[in-house]
Amino acid sequence: MQLRRFGHHPARIHHIFISHLHGDHVFGLFGLLSTMGMMGRQSAVHLYGPDALKPMMEQHFLYFGPPPFDLHFHVPAEEPGIHLFEDDKITVTPVLLKHRTLTYGYIFREKRRALNVRKEKIAEYGLGIADLVKVKQGEDHISNEGKVISNQEITLPPYRQRSYAYISDTVFDPGLADHVRGVNLLFHEATFSHKDEKLAKATLHSTAVQAAEVAKAAGVDKLLIGHFSSRYRDPGILVNEAREIFPDTVGVSDGDTHSVPLTRAGTE
Amino acid sequence: MQLRRFGHHPARIHHIFISHLHGDHVFGLFGLLSTMGMMGRQSAVHLYGPDALKPMMEQHFLYFGPPPFDLHFHVPAEEPGIHLFEDDKITVTPVLLKHRTLTYGYIFREKRRALNVRKEKIAEYGLGIADLVKVKQGEDHISNEGKVISNQEITLPPYRQRSYAYISDTVFDPGLADHVRGVNLLFHEATFSHKDEKLAKATLHSTAVQAAEVAKAAGVDKLLIGHFSSRYRDPGILVNEAREIFPDTVGVSDGDTHSVPLTRAGTE
Repeated sequence: MQLRRFGHHPARIHHIFISHLHGDHVFGLFGLLSTMGMMGRQSAVHLYGPDALKPMMEQHFLYFGPPPFDLHFHVPAEEPGIHLFEDDKITVTPVLLKHRTLTYGYIFREKRRALNVRKEKIAEYGLGIADLVKVKQGEDHISNEGKVISNQEITLPPYRQRSYAYISDTVFDPGLADHVRGVNLLFHEATFSHKDEKLAKATLHSTAVQAAEVAKAAGVDKLLIGHFSSRYRDPGILVNEAREIFPDTVGVSDGDTHSVPLTRAGTE
Repeated sequence: MQLRRFGHHPARIHHIFISHLHGDHVFGLFGLLSTMGMMGRQSAVHLYGPDALKPMMEQHFLYFGPPPFDLHFHVPAEEPGIHLFEDDKITVTPVLLKHRTLTYGYIFREKRRALNVRKEKIAEYGLGIADLVKVKQGEDHISNEGKVISNQEITLPPYRQRSYAYISDTVFDPGLADHVRGVNLLFHEATFSHKDEKLAKATLHSTAVQAAEVAKAAGVDKLLIGHFSSRYRDPGILVNEAREIFPDTVGVSDGDTHSVPLTRAGTE
């Protein structure tokens, strides 16, 4: 219902990453898969998450019927750092979080794109198809006369590889900074206010300040916090707490979008 | 989420009637029970519905944990007309519908209320507690002198017993009129337009016209139709189709409320 409300069409969704089997993180899946089936979907859906996701969904399908499309389950490897998903554009790496049940965060990173060749240089150096393939991969060009033309001279500056890390739910874990180092966007749960730090620890959740500390230690560009406890009437308080530590913090709700612009190295 | 959106507090819900195990009729239960648990609920919840509801929920709880309050399951009797629920104010009677899976409608009827005694008559006839108990139950009063005072003279006209029938989902079934005869409010599903009558029959759903025919045959006060297929951009078309047959038809959406005023016999 939230997807529909915010104008996202289920047909465009092919991969779904589930952090853990708590209701607020997975109950929407039942309706989403059901809606996809009702809409006559035929293309496969890939589900990523804890190993219990598959038997749980299979039990569910015993009562509600399986979806009329293929459903593929993918489980993170035991060893850290192994990509759970990879295509020609991005990789997705799971990171084990510390919560009350088996929980994963996911880090989405763009792959390096092929370089764009400066058009005027193609004519200037008489570059052929075979030359261009090499240059686009970052090689220098060697002319028929044996002269080396640096790759940098022939190509536009490379695009920055954008990245987004989704960290929910977890107790404060400073070690996460290593995993999310330098990402453009970090979503980190911030269930509690600093004054409820004990409660955060007891329930294996984080405070806004702790989320900000991870963002600061990791040197991310921007921190998104959410998953606020309903006990706080004004989540702005939590955002302000986080900004004391990490100024570029934004509080987020369902339906918010944050774009990371595609920029070339050396530009802002 | 819809309950919260429309300002209904889950703590006030003690009995939940499920028509059948299709996603659009039951998936919300997972989140509702989970929310009730998170809010610290301790009082029991009673669930009414097809017999598969219990094992389905128990499987679900294997993965998400059982609720921290008692959950009681109640299944309609095989014989028709037997109350599924009864307290001092109302009865709830299931009615078997004809759909693609075991499906029940539910008819909610107020019980007869104790009569209100006219205050001036208490003094006039010197009515004691024992007399009043009898009169409130509808008995005439017999004075110490053996004179019969009619119950009607001593009491205000009785309240009408209000009733509501919830019929979703079902193929057109004229026999339903007998079950819902004379109810004040009838909700009847109207998934399809008259022009898609064949599709209604094939999917075991009803058209707006068919819902109106049941309402007309049953002589209900007001018909509520809903459960419209998303194929109709303007459900007003379906409401107009129904009104041709049964003028007092209203199209309903999530969150709408319809009150049946409490009136005394002989008044409007």
